Amino acid sequence: MIVTELIEKKRDGLELSFDELSFLVNGFVGGSVEDCQMSAFMMAVCINGMTEREISDLTMIMMHSGETTDLSDLPGVKVDKHSTGGVGDTTTLVVAPLVAACGGTVAKMSGRGLAHSGGTLDKLESVPGVCVEQTTERFKEIVRDIGIAVVGQSKNLDPADKKMYALRDVTGTVKSIPLIASSIMSKKLAAGADAIVLDVKTGNGAFMNTLDDSRALAREMVSIGSNLGRKTVAIITDMNRPLGMAIGNGLEMKEAIEVLEGKVPVDDPLVKVCLVLASEMLLLAGLAPSRADAKGMLVDALVSGRGLMKLREMIAAMGGDVRYIDEPERLVMTSTIMPVYTEKAGYLYSIDARKLGLASCVLGAGRLKKEDVIDPAVGILMLKRVGDRVDPNEPYAYLYVNDDARLEEALGLIREAVTVSSEAPEDLPLVYDIIE
Amino acid sequence: MIVTELIEKKRDGLELSFDELSFLVNGFVGGSVEDCQMSAFMMAVCINGMTEREISDLTMIMMHSGETTDLSDLPGVKVDKHSTGGVGDTTTLVVAPLVAACGGTVAKMSGRGLAHSGGTLDKLESVPGVCVEQTTERFKEIVRDIGIAVVGQSKNLDPADKKMYALRDVTGTVKSIPLIASSIMSKKLAAGADAIVLDVKTGNGAFMNTLDDSRALAREMVSIGSNLGRKTVAIITDMNRPLGMAIGNGLEMKEAIEVLEGKVPVDDPLVKVCLVLASEMLLLAGLAPSRADAKGMLVDALVSGRGLMKLREMIAAMGGDVRYIDEPERLVMTSTIMPVYTEKAGYLYSIDARKLGLASCVLGAGRLKKEDVIDPAVGILMLKRVGDRVDPNEPYAYLYVNDDARLEEALGLIREAVTVSSEAPEDLPLVYDIIE
Repeated sequence: MIVTELIEKKRDGLELSFDELSFLVNGFVGGSVEDCQMSAFMMAVCINGMTEREISDLTMIMMHSGETTDLSDLPGVKVDKHSTGGVGDTTTLVVAPLVAACGGTVAKMSGRGLAHSGGTLDKLESVPGVCVEQTTERFKEIVRDIGIAVVGQSKNLDPADKKMYALRDVTGTVKSIPLIASSIMSKKLAAGADAIVLDVKTGNGAFMNTLDDSRALAREMVSIGSNLGRKTVAIITDMNRPLGMAIGNGLEMKEAIEVLEGKVPVDDPLVKVCLVLASEMLLLAGLAPSRADAKGMLVDALVSGRGLMKLREMIAAMGGDVRYIDEPERLVMTSTIMPVYTEKAGYLYSIDARKLGLASCVLGAGRLKKEDVIDPAVGILMLKRVGDRVDPNEPYAYLYVNDDARLEEALGLIREAVTVSSEAPEDLPLVYDIIE
Repeated sequence: MIVTELIEKKRDGLELSFDELSFLVNGFVGGSVEDCQMSAFMMAVCINGMTEREISDLTMIMMHSGETTDLSDLPGVKVDKHSTGGVGDTTTLVVAPLVAACGGTVAKMSGRGLAHSGGTLDKLESVPGVCVEQTTERFKEIVRDIGIAVVGQSKNLDPADKKMYALRDVTGTVKSIPLIASSIMSKKLAAGADAIVLDVKTGNGAFMNTLDDSRALAREMVSIGSNLGRKTVAIITDMNRPLGMAIGNGLEMKEAIEVLEGKVPVDDPLVKVCLVLASEMLLLAGLAPSRADAKGMLVDALVSGRGLMKLREMIAAMGGDVRYIDEPERLVMTSTIMPVYTEKAGYLYSIDARKLGLASCVLGAGRLKKEDVIDPAVGILMLKRVGDRVDPNEPYAYLYVNDDARLEEALGLIREAVTVSSEAPEDLPLVYDIIE
């Protein structure tokens, strides 16, 4: 096979066979297909798309480009959960312990923050001592002991995705449903789960801004999952506003602990979305006969404190200092906590979640450049939600700050992100659709 | 400006400004835009195209990416001529001397063979001693003295094109009218001509296979020329069959000499196309009031031997041994001359020009790999044209061979290229269109 002829085929809108895709992707991983060739090919995919068959084949090829994790010797149905990335999106830290507390087997590999969005590994590391890089043996041992472990990907998991993603990032080829879907699903499949619940975010703080795009991505991923023999469900949830009140790693860990302590009402948006995601996981795992039953089991795990116990056990097993779970204030000790006020009274009309996420990154909660070091304690704690009344005399948020030099830029972004109006904003759904 | 945002703009089908194109192209030449980024951008251009304004801007940016040649101190209108590449396409070696013999100023930079197609520089070098790399000063001196010089491009002419072309070759982005048109025209414009005659080949031996594509490319180049203030005419000529009888460097030089000696009748296809191209050059140079007058002047230059004299003077000025012009048999001295026969009698029904060109390359007349060394004497001399009667007892071609090891592969290609039928083939036009 000749590389340029395969690229030309996709350029001209034709379909590539499994062998042709394999030649390209494995050649790229091995070095015989050059960066410039792969980026031309991926641009052709961005513009001309791929058939469902091509996307499934590509996913399988990427999944097998490195080691795959075999979880078959762990008990029960292993259910994974993935979020396409959002702001104040603390769901994994709530959902995974609750599912484990209901008898689920949660053997999960997570990622780090990307652009304005947070990542579970960064949040876990806000607890001193936690080591997210575990050997596969130790990872499975923890799951066998306590039913739950959330760790980083093993080094040689899906090297095709690592190399393709790094190239997409600099060549304007990130925004492509076939490439996003195969990237996410190849990692999930390589990580070895039997069933997958996908939280596809939609809105200004998500990577997919429109409901149509989010739905198309969700459908694609569900179809890959079923083509490759894994039970997959996608839930499309809102990301036009931050989901939780906390944005920042320690702040989000603290918020998850508060949810699991039962301090947050069950009609809170974060709790609601967590219960929807966790219910689907219990259904896929065969641990609950219906959504209503699943929700009942989960609320029981929440109010009884069994969920929090699971989180505490997992943090301990991963080397973390559990005093930070017992006294979560320790997670957010900064030199300054700065209140933020609106200029006028009215309704908090809208919050641009992406800009708020960026503001949190500017404070040090995320990486704007690869080499940036994360400060686990900093971030933004919202005191008001969209639709709440605000007043210039009452702060609507606290900024947790350690480096005053970054304050001005962060404040600029926050002011751009938040609008106040005399009119009340329309209510948005939390969950738009469940695709299975 | 951010590179990925510019790439995304073209990915999404939007138009880029002059400054944006300049940022990309000059960044690429300078090294701040990476190969992978440029190839993603060029793939987006291949698929989504460019507006006429973008193509003219791109051409101007490429033209100014290196040195430009100033010919303004040479007398008269400097007319250049460019062929998009064909097989048995010996026109420059006939046209340039004839135009110079009619008082034209021909200061021309030529190229080398590409894939199956021949290149004028390789043909000139079939004459021992000829040096195609001349300084700009010496190049202009020759033109001032004798009215004609055909040399290689100066090293720093259009570095953007050199770098972009090398990348297109390996990334499946060769076939794109905006990229082909800007590549050709930026070189022609940087070389300093006042007016340009383009010979756009069409057919199986051309880089544009269909008349529609050839016409679109021709229109694009004429529009670039007029947008950038140069008189430009494109002539679409047939390349479904080799134009001349000779394919190979010494063989084609010998054929050009025979045409200029008046040994080839004026209704021969090669002579006819040469006269059309040369007429347009005289018209653009203001040296003839009409096509009929131009043709009369050119035929006079041909039969009087003044054209041949110009070729001889140029070869001498460039260091060549003119005994090879006087005794052209010296150009094609090979160890073997092998006759080729058809298997059955009938009409020579079709010749795949591309395959015949490749067969000549296999014999050593062209480069199949970058590092191949050209043998100036080898190639194919056709004895019959499409439409002629052939017979198994009479050869239809001679192969000029120095390396017998290559013979079998070449013969295989020739057999694939040539078909014989009891039916006579349809006549094809030589010239399809003149676009001005």
